Amino acid sequence: MKTRAAVAFEAKRPLEIVEVDLEGPRAGEVLVEIKATGICHTDAYTLDGLDSEGIFPSILGHEGAGVVVEVGPGVTSVAAGDHVIPLYTPECRQCKSCLSRKTNLCTAIRATQGKGVMPDGTSRFSYKGQAIAHYMGCSTFSNFTVLPEIALAKIRKDAPFASACYVGCGVTTGVGAVVNTAKVEPGANCVVFGLGGIGLNVIQGLKMVGADMIVGVDINDTKEEWGRRFGMTHFVNPKNVSDVVAHLVEMTGGGADYTFDCTGNTTVMRQALEACHRGWGESIIIGVAESGKEIATRPFQLVTGRVWRGSAFGGARGRTDTPKIVDWYMDGKIEIDPMITHTLPLERINEAFDLMHAGESIRSVVVF
Amino acid sequence: MKTRAAVAFEAKRPLEIVEVDLEGPRAGEVLVEIKATGICHTDAYTLDGLDSEGIFPSILGHEGAGVVVEVGPGVTSVAAGDHVIPLYTPECRQCKSCLSRKTNLCTAIRATQGKGVMPDGTSRFSYKGQAIAHYMGCSTFSNFTVLPEIALAKIRKDAPFASACYVGCGVTTGVGAVVNTAKVEPGANCVVFGLGGIGLNVIQGLKMVGADMIVGVDINDTKEEWGRRFGMTHFVNPKNVSDVVAHLVEMTGGGADYTFDCTGNTTVMRQALEACHRGWGESIIIGVAESGKEIATRPFQLVTGRVWRGSAFGGARGRTDTPKIVDWYMDGKIEIDPMITHTLPLERINEAFDLMHAGESIRSVVVF
Repeated sequence: MKTRAAVAFEAKRPLEIVEVDLEGPRAGEVLVEIKATGICHTDAYTLDGLDSEGIFPSILGHEGAGVVVEVGPGVTSVAAGDHVIPLYTPECRQCKSCLSRKTNLCTAIRATQGKGVMPDGTSRFSYKGQAIAHYMGCSTFSNFTVLPEIALAKIRKDAPFASACYVGCGVTTGVGAVVNTAKVEPGANCVVFGLGGIGLNVIQGLKMVGADMIVGVDINDTKEEWGRRFGMTHFVNPKNVSDVVAHLVEMTGGGADYTFDCTGNTTVMRQALEACHRGWGESIIIGVAESGKEIATRPFQLVTGRVWRGSAFGGARGRTDTPKIVDWYMDGKIEIDPMITHTLPLERINEAFDLMHAGESIRSVVVF
Repeated sequence: MKTRAAVAFEAKRPLEIVEVDLEGPRAGEVLVEIKATGICHTDAYTLDGLDSEGIFPSILGHEGAGVVVEVGPGVTSVAAGDHVIPLYTPECRQCKSCLSRKTNLCTAIRATQGKGVMPDGTSRFSYKGQAIAHYMGCSTFSNFTVLPEIALAKIRKDAPFASACYVGCGVTTGVGAVVNTAKVEPGANCVVFGLGGIGLNVIQGLKMVGADMIVGVDINDTKEEWGRRFGMTHFVNPKNVSDVVAHLVEMTGGGADYTFDCTGNTTVMRQALEACHRGWGESIIIGVAESGKEIATRPFQLVTGRVWRGSAFGGARGRTDTPKIVDWYMDGKIEIDPMITHTLPLERINEAFDLMHAGESIRSVVVF
């Protein structure tokens, strides 16, 4: 079949909207009509050529929502008409990782996903006879796409696609880091570094679980209003204090119980660790650092009880936990709509990248 | 009163055995007759002048066992004749840390302990009229010493002093890191870096809790026999493999569930983290690094599920958990006696430092 898609033919060049060829689903695969897709920093990271493993030409996009059109042989967990969120972190429920009960990082199809192909080693996309790579196993910048069954979360049908798509990455990454990775308890004092599309979701996750202090840190004063909108109780602009770590330790009465880095800046990651309370403070790295950059600290920080950990896709098991987050949104426990600052048709998808780079959007969503 | 003690008059000079003056216990304090004391790397670290906060003259020693001689006003939890282990990590059961339920690092007397004085700001020791500093709140290199009540663990009377003293630091630090900090589960695959007086106790802790693989790593081949003696199942000398991290990841089928650094070397600390299994492996820093040294890694290591934490005094609450470890020794669940390779009188305490520096002892104990 044919489908409209925004194709990344080369790094550092705008996406081109063309009609590509899409093969139907093979065994264990599902054809999905994407109804909406968010544009995330990770897409820009790859498009800008910063990802050393980026593949071109490819169809980017990993934060979508849509409807199952057709299932391949052997598919049992979803059927035509089901509403789904594509999962860049699948959940096979069979691999060592899924069975460990300790991680959400299913490894069933990791090797082929990283190579831009389906688990059988081939791509379903082509343009003028040339294969086009899948991206993060999702490729939601295409109106129709094919995914492995284990990479689809079935969600309720009354959730609007333009909001639900954000659960496919940003919302789950932020809220999940609080709920699944840090397991923040009510009454905790927390600090969130970076008040963008992830940080705001960390904030609303902290509000949901009953944190006491929710301190937001950002070098951009205009983010204060955004933070407070979702539950932030205190704001710190590091430019206005001489020593941000000392300032935060004092504010929180000895250090935070939990801190979250949503900046991807390794200097900030160190500050986030060192702003933790002696004895038990835990710092969660969410942001993706530039390739080659390293984090560092004195080991004494850990020996005296601080814990350094990271979170990928909010520690959420794709098929099990993602639908719950959609439920939380529908039940009003978390918000999504106010964060979607821009909605665009596919033809204007490059504007969404411009808005993100200019810091003018929290989240832009393309609706098909 | 007068008591014999090994005094550190200056950094980098042998201890001198002299008779010092000791004041009796004030309110909340206890006079203890030390019956035996271990000599630990931390004592050497201070004596060698590496501890920037080291104070001289002082009476070192923090790994002791003895008998309560006299209690000061208000002391209720111990009485004359009780057998006790002095605690450099006290347990007041009243401070924010003790009440957090999340750490063993009681902060009740931290400030004065670091300054070499009792909680009221004065020292009980003097020599020729000059005050001599306490050390880590213990000063077990003195035949008699005074401690705060909250820094004494009451233990059973049938435990031999010369073995029980080792529970005051090394045994608890190693076994406790497994039990309290890492909370290792049966069947886990674990790697221990550094097979000295701490590493061997980590190994026997792992054996006690039912770990599957217990891989010991040491650059000294003679440590293999020691490791196997306490439950080590595999031995790796990093000098014999090209890439120790890759080697350990392969040996453990993808990485260790838990790794322990008992070397204090920051390069080894990084290897310990990176030898952990993707998704859930946790690395515990036990060793004390040289001042100014930092640990580093790519944040990707944490984002993909590895956890970096530290352990001080094995995460053990001094008064609550230390007596249990003595019980485990008396019940045969852990061993102590084979690790005590040398027993010396106080007069020969400097030999114990020489043996440690030469790598000839696992633990030397001075008996009074």
